[in-house]
Amino acid sequence: MIHAAELIRRKRDGERLAGDEVAELVLAYARGEVPDYQMAAFCMAVYFQGLDGAETSALTDAMIASGETIDLSGGIGRKVVDKHSTGGVGDKTSLAVGPIVAACGVPFGKMSGRGLGHTGGTLDKLESIPGFRVELTTEEFVAQVREVGLAIIGQSANLVPADKLLYGLRDVTATVDNVSLIAASIMSKKIAAGADAIVLDVKVGGGAFMKTLDAARELAVMMGELGRHAGREVACLLTDMDQPLGHAVGNALEIRETIATLTGAGPADLTELVLAASAQLLAFSDLAVDRDEGRQRAAAALQDGSALAAYERWIAAQGGDPAEEALPSAPVVREVVAPSAGVVRSLGAIDVGMAALRLGAGRRTKEDVIDHAVGVLCLKKRGDDVRDGDVLAQVHARDEEAAQAAAADVLAAYEIGDEAPRPSSIVLETIV
Amino acid sequence: MIHAAELIRRKRDGERLAGDEVAELVLAYARGEVPDYQMAAFCMAVYFQGLDGAETSALTDAMIASGETIDLSGGIGRKVVDKHSTGGVGDKTSLAVGPIVAACGVPFGKMSGRGLGHTGGTLDKLESIPGFRVELTTEEFVAQVREVGLAIIGQSANLVPADKLLYGLRDVTATVDNVSLIAASIMSKKIAAGADAIVLDVKVGGGAFMKTLDAARELAVMMGELGRHAGREVACLLTDMDQPLGHAVGNALEIRETIATLTGAGPADLTELVLAASAQLLAFSDLAVDRDEGRQRAAAALQDGSALAAYERWIAAQGGDPAEEALPSAPVVREVVAPSAGVVRSLGAIDVGMAALRLGAGRRTKEDVIDHAVGVLCLKKRGDDVRDGDVLAQVHARDEEAAQAAAADVLAAYEIGDEAPRPSSIVLETIV
Repeated sequence: MIHAAELIRRKRDGERLAGDEVAELVLAYARGEVPDYQMAAFCMAVYFQGLDGAETSALTDAMIASGETIDLSGGIGRKVVDKHSTGGVGDKTSLAVGPIVAACGVPFGKMSGRGLGHTGGTLDKLESIPGFRVELTTEEFVAQVREVGLAIIGQSANLVPADKLLYGLRDVTATVDNVSLIAASIMSKKIAAGADAIVLDVKVGGGAFMKTLDAARELAVMMGELGRHAGREVACLLTDMDQPLGHAVGNALEIRETIATLTGAGPADLTELVLAASAQLLAFSDLAVDRDEGRQRAAAALQDGSALAAYERWIAAQGGDPAEEALPSAPVVREVVAPSAGVVRSLGAIDVGMAALRLGAGRRTKEDVIDHAVGVLCLKKRGDDVRDGDVLAQVHARDEEAAQAAAADVLAAYEIGDEAPRPSSIVLETIV
Repeated sequence: MIHAAELIRRKRDGERLAGDEVAELVLAYARGEVPDYQMAAFCMAVYFQGLDGAETSALTDAMIASGETIDLSGGIGRKVVDKHSTGGVGDKTSLAVGPIVAACGVPFGKMSGRGLGHTGGTLDKLESIPGFRVELTTEEFVAQVREVGLAIIGQSANLVPADKLLYGLRDVTATVDNVSLIAASIMSKKIAAGADAIVLDVKVGGGAFMKTLDAARELAVMMGELGRHAGREVACLLTDMDQPLGHAVGNALEIRETIATLTGAGPADLTELVLAASAQLLAFSDLAVDRDEGRQRAAAALQDGSALAAYERWIAAQGGDPAEEALPSAPVVREVVAPSAGVVRSLGAIDVGMAALRLGAGRRTKEDVIDHAVGVLCLKKRGDDVRDGDVLAQVHARDEEAAQAAAADVLAAYEIGDEAPRPSSIVLETIV
């Protein structure tokens, strides 16, 4: 019998728990033998006292052991790659990276979650494509990665059930913000989903969970260690999330931007991030190329149409219509006009995300239904010059009233001034 | 709608909550609208960040407001007094104090809890008296205090239900040890139970919850403030709990010792504490006497038989047989003999308490049934000289095997050496 109260007390008092004690607690919790209230107290004790590397590793292993695991490379006979982002506004990177590496001949298999908050998650974006199925069986998932070279699906319910329980509990007990719990949550899912090499995009800034480069670096290093401990190759890109990524924020709008990016016509920051992530994945793959060569191949895939073709094959394989015209459009489009000339000093990612949420692009509660057509296009970004009357952004809305409110929100997200902001690149740091 | 997660987060981050926020949280919890897991996380955040005086006061008030309150003085037309102890090994003080102040003409009304741990609580001790009823209705309780001048009963289920819930939760989530939560738990019950003046016995030392005088003083000061805030007079005695109080540890054995004490034949430390507490209660009462005069009257009640007579009236009023011969006796009594000559340097309260628990005098779980007859008599106490072969203690057990094990435990609780320990008095400090 596990004595959960004693483990809580020891963690509360700053003691280090043995790996098998952490494992026993988590597995007993997953079996329903340790109640939510004890796990909540434990998580709060962890918030204050932390977990060291060995404890975090034991937590990750136990969460993986709570459910099924997928043997992707075994089922495919190739090294399979995956990419994950800690979440930001306008982040459609994976949707472009997958087709690029697939076009380069590297199998890409990703399980993804749904978004709760300002904008939809990867699955919500994909579901704006008519007919697209995110719910495949594990067998269908493995088969599609093998045959099409690319699959992105919803996370199997049998995968890491302990994390599902624990995350739901942390969300309502103010115990989300702990680097070990975050790292274990992300990496347990990535490891269980079976890819051999993973590129993690750790967002940094006002629109991200990690507000500072130091915090992002700590998370990145910890996730790298957890991945390598499980025999996976891991690289982390620390990337800017002070402003939205690319122009589009909102589900179908982001799919359109993905398609544009796959033809080489995407926004500069998004294209740069997509190429950086793809280059790293190709360097990890069994192609035996380095990062420079990987980047050249990725860039070529955008130019020669092979990335777009891979996208179309993938979407069709999951039942979707890959044509851009098939995507839903919002009935009302309203322009947000610059009230004065100057330069965009900042564009608040969270503010734009909240405007998109109010338009219906995201969920406030799990029960909310997403409006895939609506969202915001931020045509001007940080550092862009604007003249009085220039269109800063477009709001795509369900009706005039919503459009008007969102336009005011988006305008307020822009800070326009005289002095140009310090130039910065989208990838702030790479940790391999 | 209360946003519990947000209140947890703010407390976690060290913010001070408004009184009505604390109240709303506790009352919503008592109504079942805030789940255990959120309250557990909140308690752990309080463990690390603390509550200030205003927050603790709001918590206490909300717990009181969660149930019924008793208007003792209104129902009796007199100032009513009460005494409470934070709990120690061999603590039967209230059982002697009640009859003494009643004999002096001051109404005494106390609601008590059951013990969980080494030895029984006050109710368990009383239940070793054949026929004694601890479950009276509130009306019966008030009537008995009015007519007999003394009642000690189990806490009404309707009194401070929030504390009952919260204490049960804290017990299994390692969130008991916080001075504000402890103070609010004790004082909410004392205030709701209706006495006008309360003497609190805060135990200090190895066998007590408070290990240091500083910790005990902090709790005492906080409880005093909470009581006065509710219009009650409060005094705290900080008393020694490094060794058991008196000789007897175990339910019927402690009742016997109570009877001896009421005739002036009790152990010195117990008698001193009983007189100090009684003196303070008489000084608080409507008799208009000071503490010195109170002490003289209390001592006189022991000498003239009136305290014992009050005890007998009280026990009979609650259906019990007050005769000492009616108490159960254990079939096996085994002596613990000094292995060498010297002086008792220390006698571990917890060790004796655990020996009594193993004999069956206490509960490990709520479901355990107490054996009222068993226990330990510590005949030699700290500072006593012993010769080789002297009887240090007696073990009263259900069978030989249990007696033998307990005798070894009790012997190990004695430290006998050459040098006498520094003399110390039972009452370390009085805070009025």
